[in-house]
Amino acid sequence: MNVETMQAALETGFGTVTTNHARQLDEFEFQAPLPRAYQFLDASAYVNHVALVRQARGAEMPQSFWTDPLMYQGVSDAFLGPNDPIVGDPAWGLDFEAEIAVITGPVPMGITAEEAVSTIKLVLLLNDVSLRSLIPDELAKGFGFLQSKPRNACSPVAVTPDSLSGWDGGKLHGILNVDFNGAPFGRTDAGIDMTFDFGTLIAHAAKTRPLGAGTIIGSGTVSNRDADGGPGRPVAQGGKGYSCIAEQRMVETLQTGTPQTPFLQPGDRVKIWMEDESGQSIFGAIEQEVIPWP
Amino acid sequence: MNVETMQAALETGFGTVTTNHARQLDEFEFQAPLPRAYQFLDASAYVNHVALVRQARGAEMPQSFWTDPLMYQGVSDAFLGPNDPIVGDPAWGLDFEAEIAVITGPVPMGITAEEAVSTIKLVLLLNDVSLRSLIPDELAKGFGFLQSKPRNACSPVAVTPDSLSGWDGGKLHGILNVDFNGAPFGRTDAGIDMTFDFGTLIAHAAKTRPLGAGTIIGSGTVSNRDADGGPGRPVAQGGKGYSCIAEQRMVETLQTGTPQTPFLQPGDRVKIWMEDESGQSIFGAIEQEVIPWP
Repeated sequence: MNVETMQAALETGFGTVTTNHARQLDEFEFQAPLPRAYQFLDASAYVNHVALVRQARGAEMPQSFWTDPLMYQGVSDAFLGPNDPIVGDPAWGLDFEAEIAVITGPVPMGITAEEAVSTIKLVLLLNDVSLRSLIPDELAKGFGFLQSKPRNACSPVAVTPDSLSGWDGGKLHGILNVDFNGAPFGRTDAGIDMTFDFGTLIAHAAKTRPLGAGTIIGSGTVSNRDADGGPGRPVAQGGKGYSCIAEQRMVETLQTGTPQTPFLQPGDRVKIWMEDESGQSIFGAIEQEVIPWP
Repeated sequence: MNVETMQAALETGFGTVTTNHARQLDEFEFQAPLPRAYQFLDASAYVNHVALVRQARGAEMPQSFWTDPLMYQGVSDAFLGPNDPIVGDPAWGLDFEAEIAVITGPVPMGITAEEAVSTIKLVLLLNDVSLRSLIPDELAKGFGFLQSKPRNACSPVAVTPDSLSGWDGGKLHGILNVDFNGAPFGRTDAGIDMTFDFGTLIAHAAKTRPLGAGTIIGSGTVSNRDADGGPGRPVAQGGKGYSCIAEQRMVETLQTGTPQTPFLQPGDRVKIWMEDESGQSIFGAIEQEVIPWP
């Protein structure tokens, strides 16, 4: 690249970024590809995840959730690097959410979903850190997430869509690996059960305003139904597992009446990554440890 | 200033910025002080405004709204300049919201309201453009404003708190002037009925995360009760008027059963400004015209 920052590259353009560097990730200390961004919009595109939350609560999910994307304006003034700690009070109900995200160039207002696909410049992984105990009160106020969604962590590498064999133009196919304290926790496929593709999400965001270059759009927690259509089983039981603790707790609630798995505790570690066909890490890994606050 | 951009100044520090330039505003074409920002958080600190909305709807307002600030993560990837048009479909229910905002330096996580006051570097005016017809459905989804709150306009000048005679450490006292199509529409006092001062708002935002330098915090629509404690009367009837059309419509609804004043139509003009004791414009004026879309 002939530009000084990723933000400048997104404004002026750049060529193909290959994933070669991901092969020696251990040798570097990485920041987020955009250590701060002018915009982060996070969706909930795997509607299965939303349906499970509602089911565990005994609440009805509006039918419109299958046709009208859920999306919120998220914090973007800083993104955590892939190895930065998750700092928080365990009483806040600390959780991770593994998701796919794209970074756009400039997006004109009123763009269609079909046109929006061509504005996607880069793809990366996110850990959308969530404070579960603070969410219900904030959502009840109607103004969305603020205290309950602090800064997110990014994969060390963001790659262009054309270098991704699993990219179909609007979704990324492939296994999103999540390990929790060294054990497999999630092995969902990001290309399955994504109700709204990234073109649709970008068009939703740009309905009433343009989006500046460097806008990050998140997919929301990747979530797969089980083969029989029921909620997914844990990896240890032969299932695809989960991309956040909350979903495992919901399945436990549906099965036993109460959640069994606690939210994140100090010292807990989460690792999030994807591999290509040859087993090479595509984006490098997000690998974070929980540090108590204050 | 010895720095190239306002963002850099907020990170590295700068001296007092005087309001002298506001005296020749007509000679310049201004952008927003921060044409794009890494973070905009908008509150609803004049709880009177929220209470009126609820009253007009016949809905109860939770008592907690008087002690727990309403605040949402707003769009910041671009701010309109003071004379940029408001572009939108009149069917969206276009409205303005005149408010006070502050720009912070870096804010550590967990800061107290008392400490937070010293992080305020600049004060300015905002027009928080709102799409009233899109708000109810978005708030019902719980994820906050996205399509219903497009880009906001800024006053041409932002000034340091110590140069404001009306600044009391947490609020800005003085008349916020709003003219609508050349006639006085709002003459509220920004220092009155502000339930949460800016220190409290910053502390609320920083409960679970630090805030980057250049974070813009909005007060929400400035709104005053009438002298008798009832909803404010229009300026033409000797009252202080309103800082948004929605509030005038709510008062009309309470008084006559139906709103009388339409939302913004193509060609409508709104002007927002404040004056010091000598009648000089403090921040320059936001003055925008409505352009239809598409």
